[in-house]
Amino acid sequence: MARNTQVAADPHAPPVTRTLARFVATHPSRGWSDAVDHEAHRTFLNWVGCAAGAAEHEAARAALAAVAMLQPAPQATVLGRRERVDMASAALVNGITSHTFDFDDTYLKTIIHPAGPVASALFALAEVTGATGRQLVDALVLGIDVSCRLGNAMYPDHYDRGWHITGSTGTLGAAAGCARLLGLDEERTAMALGIAASQPVGMREQFGTMTKPFHPGGAARAGLLSALLAKHGFTASPKAIEAPRGYVQVVSTKCDWAEATDDLGSRFEISFNTYKPFACGIVIHPAIDACVQLRAKGVRPEDVERIELRVHPLVLELTGKKEPQDGLQGKFSVYHGCAAGIFFGQAGEGEYEDAVVRREDVTALRRKVVATVDDAVDEAAADVTAILKDGRREHVRVEHAIGSLERPMTDANLEAKFRSLAEPIMGARRTADLIEACWNLGAAPGVAALATLGRP
Amino acid sequence: MARNTQVAADPHAPPVTRTLARFVATHPSRGWSDAVDHEAHRTFLNWVGCAAGAAEHEAARAALAAVAMLQPAPQATVLGRRERVDMASAALVNGITSHTFDFDDTYLKTIIHPAGPVASALFALAEVTGATGRQLVDALVLGIDVSCRLGNAMYPDHYDRGWHITGSTGTLGAAAGCARLLGLDEERTAMALGIAASQPVGMREQFGTMTKPFHPGGAARAGLLSALLAKHGFTASPKAIEAPRGYVQVVSTKCDWAEATDDLGSRFEISFNTYKPFACGIVIHPAIDACVQLRAKGVRPEDVERIELRVHPLVLELTGKKEPQDGLQGKFSVYHGCAAGIFFGQAGEGEYEDAVVRREDVTALRRKVVATVDDAVDEAAADVTAILKDGRREHVRVEHAIGSLERPMTDANLEAKFRSLAEPIMGARRTADLIEACWNLGAAPGVAALATLGRP
Repeated sequence: MARNTQVAADPHAPPVTRTLARFVATHPSRGWSDAVDHEAHRTFLNWVGCAAGAAEHEAARAALAAVAMLQPAPQATVLGRRERVDMASAALVNGITSHTFDFDDTYLKTIIHPAGPVASALFALAEVTGATGRQLVDALVLGIDVSCRLGNAMYPDHYDRGWHITGSTGTLGAAAGCARLLGLDEERTAMALGIAASQPVGMREQFGTMTKPFHPGGAARAGLLSALLAKHGFTASPKAIEAPRGYVQVVSTKCDWAEATDDLGSRFEISFNTYKPFACGIVIHPAIDACVQLRAKGVRPEDVERIELRVHPLVLELTGKKEPQDGLQGKFSVYHGCAAGIFFGQAGEGEYEDAVVRREDVTALRRKVVATVDDAVDEAAADVTAILKDGRREHVRVEHAIGSLERPMTDANLEAKFRSLAEPIMGARRTADLIEACWNLGAAPGVAALATLGRP
Repeated sequence: MARNTQVAADPHAPPVTRTLARFVATHPSRGWSDAVDHEAHRTFLNWVGCAAGAAEHEAARAALAAVAMLQPAPQATVLGRRERVDMASAALVNGITSHTFDFDDTYLKTIIHPAGPVASALFALAEVTGATGRQLVDALVLGIDVSCRLGNAMYPDHYDRGWHITGSTGTLGAAAGCARLLGLDEERTAMALGIAASQPVGMREQFGTMTKPFHPGGAARAGLLSALLAKHGFTASPKAIEAPRGYVQVVSTKCDWAEATDDLGSRFEISFNTYKPFACGIVIHPAIDACVQLRAKGVRPEDVERIELRVHPLVLELTGKKEPQDGLQGKFSVYHGCAAGIFFGQAGEGEYEDAVVRREDVTALRRKVVATVDDAVDEAAADVTAILKDGRREHVRVEHAIGSLERPMTDANLEAKFRSLAEPIMGARRTADLIEACWNLGAAPGVAALATLGRP
């Protein structure tokens, strides 16, 4: 997070988006010469002729066969919703929702969130094709391997330049996974990767808007469609990833090919996947973790006189907001994070709701947190002491927060996180069944039962 | 075409696409440790929880409302086919077919084929929403203006680096057009452009494969969906096009902002659209044009002793194939082009069928063409003399070929081209009606009648 990601760029560009939007939205109908209007008709006529003329071409047949697989439309589940949609749309929406809280998984080396694009595409496809759970798990491992490896080949240049690496590599991971799930051979899998290579999704300028979670969703949809097209004979360059005017060289200045293929089949990138325990930036996690541990030691809000917090300077630089007014501001407040840790023993999405951030008792506890910066405390660490009203002191030092590679979330931690997310949507009973179905996925005859549980 | 488009690139990259494809297609099921397999289940569990947890978020609602508009699925026409599909798929397939023969329109300044992405998205959307023909024409002019202007801002750097500029700007043009057709206000139009800005489609490495025509199709689909999402409240950065980590700066080193907005509303880029008269590379067009004119002067194949052709050196460098063996090779043979011009008076897709290229009489005429290079002949020109068996000589010099900005295709030329494309698919009667419907589009109450005519 402290890394310098400056790039040569023009921060003084005029408001082109706004200007074009105003023009498109407000320019009067037929606000141009007859010649322009006639040219529009010529353009349209020529387009109709070209499209109709190629209607029997093999590319048209392949594309139609692929999109025909999106029918009948209510074929795939949107997790947590009753309605079913076509599988491309399900891949899109599940990809969006899985990244909406920025609370999903993280491949820390490149900050890729690998499941969003890959799992979203695979789950939708598996529900339609009737693939076994084992086939889905295999495809998940292999798809994530492809996207993370391509990320390694391009990171950090690709990310620094402005690509949201989750979506820009995710299309290829999703295509790889779907090709595997469809049982495509090497040749058609190369075509699936090739078609996907033309569709990187996502720029970092979108951070803070819904288009950020759109990126894994769009990547899932694009990767899924690429595999469907390849299955039906659609072609792409067999060098689409590595050619001079192919994917990697077009979207990155760094092209470390060895990262893409070394130890293929012996080192699996999914091994290095991590899961956020708290619904906020990684930099606050050690402090929250320490406060959760204080709570486990018996520290109660009403007993607290003062919380002394020593952290790396970056923590206050990025998350030093003392009086957050709503949930979003709360995510940038290490003070609120600490209060949540002691109050609730967790800091999930629920602890960042506006109402919680504004609660009087939470606010009161937050104001008792005194933070000081200490260069001797590592960025990954936090040192917290609770001074209680009765004079007792409880101290916790965290060197690596829960959720890091050094101290991964346990399965029980993951289940608790899952419950905090799913129970408000579908209740405790169904949530428990869904957890069980996820653990048993590799042995399941298919995903139909799990998908049914996923619809409240 | 002669321009040097060399870029710093690595032509010696290893076969990454092939290696990853083989790995994904052939690595054994569960060919990894139990720890890796368990991590896959943890990744999946965490993904399900995150997706289900955000199921009621406003981003989920907006995305579902957008994809719900893709129903009922048989809602939009694929030109030249009987089946109807959902409108996103129709935008995709019509975008593919309109570019399949590489015979569509060209905005020569940047080699953008503007109708593919924009018209494909608009036609599908208009059929579903019941927009008037006038609304469609307005949206076509404005959408093409946006994509061509963004192309001008980035060309040639963007294209040289490897982006297929038709697809990479087309997403934004399609989004702009669809936003207009949907009647979105300035704010939501900016969001549509913003969502589209995260989805440039297309790399030049794909030229020669079906993924080249996929690019305008993918752009049409992505732009259409961006507008649907914006309509339902999905958000994006309002500076998505111009920000340092936004679209233009991420995909291009050249960022000439004035090109995007100067003379907006007074100069319309569709005015500079051109239409290919012949289904082959632009460089052969002057020679074919001259031969078509010779035919009009009464030159008949059986009377020809010899055809003397003087052309710019580039013509033979790129299209000097003397004995083409099939249709594709024929497109790289100025000799076949000249023969087709004299034989048929045209060189559409039909004149490049394998059987035509192999015809004995066509081959015999082709062999009578003697081409010499002449530096005094411009790249846009051709000088052709027919020496007939009776000793007569007919001479035609073309300075600018039919289809260029200087000598645009007449409406009659466009109709003839249309017939050559559409009649084999839907017969003469229906083709004539469809031409009429296209010319009357701006006055039509909707596109339903035209769409019906477009289905054979």
